Amino acid sequence: MSETPPDGLAMAEAVRAGETTPVELVEAAIERIERLNPQLNFLVTDRFEQALTEAASHDGSGAFAGVPFLTKDLGSETAGEPHWMGNRALRRIDNRATTTSYLADLFRDAGFINLGRANTPEFGSIITTEPLANGPCRNPWNTDHSTGGSSGGSAAAVAAGIVPVAHANDGGGSIRIPASECGLVGLKPSRARVSSGPLVGQGWGGATADLVVSRSVRDTAAVLDAVGVAMPGDPYIAPPPQQPFLDEVGTDPGTLRVHVFSQTSDGGIDPACVEAAESTGRILESLGHQVTTGPIAALEDESSMEALISLIAVDVARDVAKVATAIGKEPTEDDIEIGNLLLAELGRTVTGLQVIEAIDAAHAYGRMIAGVWADGGFDVLVTPTLGGPPPPIGWLTGPESTDRMSPLLRFTAQFNVTGQPGISLPMHWSDGLPIGVQLVAAQNEEALLIQLASQLEAAAPWAHRLPPINAF
Amino acid sequence: MSETPPDGLAMAEAVRAGETTPVELVEAAIERIERLNPQLNFLVTDRFEQALTEAASHDGSGAFAGVPFLTKDLGSETAGEPHWMGNRALRRIDNRATTTSYLADLFRDAGFINLGRANTPEFGSIITTEPLANGPCRNPWNTDHSTGGSSGGSAAAVAAGIVPVAHANDGGGSIRIPASECGLVGLKPSRARVSSGPLVGQGWGGATADLVVSRSVRDTAAVLDAVGVAMPGDPYIAPPPQQPFLDEVGTDPGTLRVHVFSQTSDGGIDPACVEAAESTGRILESLGHQVTTGPIAALEDESSMEALISLIAVDVARDVAKVATAIGKEPTEDDIEIGNLLLAELGRTVTGLQVIEAIDAAHAYGRMIAGVWADGGFDVLVTPTLGGPPPPIGWLTGPESTDRMSPLLRFTAQFNVTGQPGISLPMHWSDGLPIGVQLVAAQNEEALLIQLASQLEAAAPWAHRLPPINAF
Repeated sequence: MSETPPDGLAMAEAVRAGETTPVELVEAAIERIERLNPQLNFLVTDRFEQALTEAASHDGSGAFAGVPFLTKDLGSETAGEPHWMGNRALRRIDNRATTTSYLADLFRDAGFINLGRANTPEFGSIITTEPLANGPCRNPWNTDHSTGGSSGGSAAAVAAGIVPVAHANDGGGSIRIPASECGLVGLKPSRARVSSGPLVGQGWGGATADLVVSRSVRDTAAVLDAVGVAMPGDPYIAPPPQQPFLDEVGTDPGTLRVHVFSQTSDGGIDPACVEAAESTGRILESLGHQVTTGPIAALEDESSMEALISLIAVDVARDVAKVATAIGKEPTEDDIEIGNLLLAELGRTVTGLQVIEAIDAAHAYGRMIAGVWADGGFDVLVTPTLGGPPPPIGWLTGPESTDRMSPLLRFTAQFNVTGQPGISLPMHWSDGLPIGVQLVAAQNEEALLIQLASQLEAAAPWAHRLPPINAF
Repeated sequence: MSETPPDGLAMAEAVRAGETTPVELVEAAIERIERLNPQLNFLVTDRFEQALTEAASHDGSGAFAGVPFLTKDLGSETAGEPHWMGNRALRRIDNRATTTSYLADLFRDAGFINLGRANTPEFGSIITTEPLANGPCRNPWNTDHSTGGSSGGSAAAVAAGIVPVAHANDGGGSIRIPASECGLVGLKPSRARVSSGPLVGQGWGGATADLVVSRSVRDTAAVLDAVGVAMPGDPYIAPPPQQPFLDEVGTDPGTLRVHVFSQTSDGGIDPACVEAAESTGRILESLGHQVTTGPIAALEDESSMEALISLIAVDVARDVAKVATAIGKEPTEDDIEIGNLLLAELGRTVTGLQVIEAIDAAHAYGRMIAGVWADGGFDVLVTPTLGGPPPPIGWLTGPESTDRMSPLLRFTAQFNVTGQPGISLPMHWSDGLPIGVQLVAAQNEEALLIQLASQLEAAAPWAHRLPPINAF
């Protein structure tokens, strides 16, 4: 155990320096999984044998030269390997992916060794990781609390020191929320930065984005360099960065205009979350940035959320249809959680015309927010990631879950609709639980976010903060 | 009249040199319209008075410093001005646009002076410009023949020398086809190169792209520089070019690997069109390129077309719904053409799930074709633009229109599905009618197309070829 445990790049450096090997790293990670997974339940299915084989023949190439890794069990799939999406029926039949995603190939090329699939809420449709298929994933900071979701399994594993980096994806906050609740770095990249090929065109109408959760800003930057690569023929391609994102770590961003939006007009944000954003604002001011504060009405406009919900509902209907095909019968509550059955029912009523209109509304909203950005004259927006602290296990899974989710979901999903990059940083703790702060930039300005995030990481470091349950 | 009439940039140069003025150019264009529009019917509605006012106060800025221009009456709309989309009911009520498109602003900033709205088939859904709302637009090469569509009004006007450049857009071939049938240059840019903001997200599921038809390659390149600019907040942005597209004109492309696909496996391509593509291949070979020939099965795969048709049907259903709102009643055959009523009926049956699946299928097709490109090892594909010569007026408007369109539409719509850029060049004539040849590059490789197109323009110039009906 060390005060500041190594991140992924430090592990890779150790491999390259001959101080350790991919096999040693993988064996140690397996040991940590076996020790802590019973308490935390982050892992759904392992591939330890393949991982050991891959480690043994690993040539140390890639930025993460043989570093252990987990993939969320929703996306980043590998042909022939489990893909259960948090669903009971698919788990029961041991469903296997038929296609290898481009992203899975890029993670492998980056040098990561995948040890298994991480826990996720069914179809990623809620913000806690407590699927009936796998049981609740528990927060290493306090096992009575949620890890957030939908990338909760990945976040719990990284927070507990099992792996330094794990795959995550985000259609309404699902990278940023678990990063916030588990005390991690979680960047949702710009729309079209990371390919969803070969099969997915636009997850949730273009709202979803894949990347990772990590403990250091530089790990996230290095992963973005490795996987922010278009698949040939991708329908859309984000403009390439001026220089590698990793080079932005430690680059002085100059004096930025930062706006802190810490409290909504209904006063619904928990004081700890308000304080997280405002104290971050004060740090940014002390670093020389020009900081303004106040609510932003356009970001409280619910119309964009309506568009997103109907797009999510259609995709959940599609997931349900896939389950039906896989199991050869109409799924029931024994196969699919009631919340998703209801969402799918809604999704089946959404017409093609409504989907086209929802996509147009989403894109119009993005342009409107860009106008707000320009009018406000700011470079970066700072918000709490969530409207409240990590909720207790069970809080978001009952019949009141929708009503209980909305006070939390006040700051993230807007940027899935606009496609802008947002990063959650572990800037604050309250009652022993992490409270993340989100930085948002204009579309395709990940470089700026990484510069600013690394500046905050240096000014208010978090690497020494370890949860009570950890394997460091 | 001159042997090689000036293109738009030459006119702008004359303005800048003090040899003419925007007012003189606009007055001359109005005179040409009044003289030739009765024969050709390219103009739906004029804005001569505004154009003269704009010309009088024009400061000569923009690459096209006060050059007269037309906008297709489908898109590039200006708030308060007519937007009839080739529809009788909207024409009857003199429908006005409520929003100014970002593209209209960019055309104005480029220095163009819009003289009016150009004829288009209703909702742009067929490839001849013979709407019941406006009557047929006639081909200046032979008025018994179609101009093609849907940008037929624009193409007829440019071919006849009314304006040097006119707005066009393309969701299945609607820039390239009228360019082919009227003897013009017509580039469909890459997906997301030209903004559809502020309101449209993805026309026809991302198949549509706006630009112009022109007589010279350099005019097209200069327009692409002027309007290939993202609107802030655009959902997707094509990667910016290495240098201005105009600088690609005359730039040596080096030795390219060119594949000529001139005949489909069913032998259904008209010999004149086969010869157009093959003779272009011979010219390219004489220019030092490596030329291969043969069919490409993946480009004859109908599945991508099925996806596109359902996306078009949904958008036409939306257009019909807009007409219903505008006229305050359910439209009948007196309001909307029967073909579009039937297409809308189909569109209303398309579910949200089917739209999502169609978009995914389109994107998967794009990646598959990128694989074919890579496997084939070619830089540029050469095809006939159409499967046959410009058809007679009336050929594509009767009950057999769908059956008669499909043998023509063999080479263009695939690249609306993939999002790749394609340019039609006037490389061939048969029986006095132009036969265009299409060059297609990988996505976002417009620079390569412009290099090669300008090389062909120099090797086999067409600027001296004028149609029998012309105002030069």
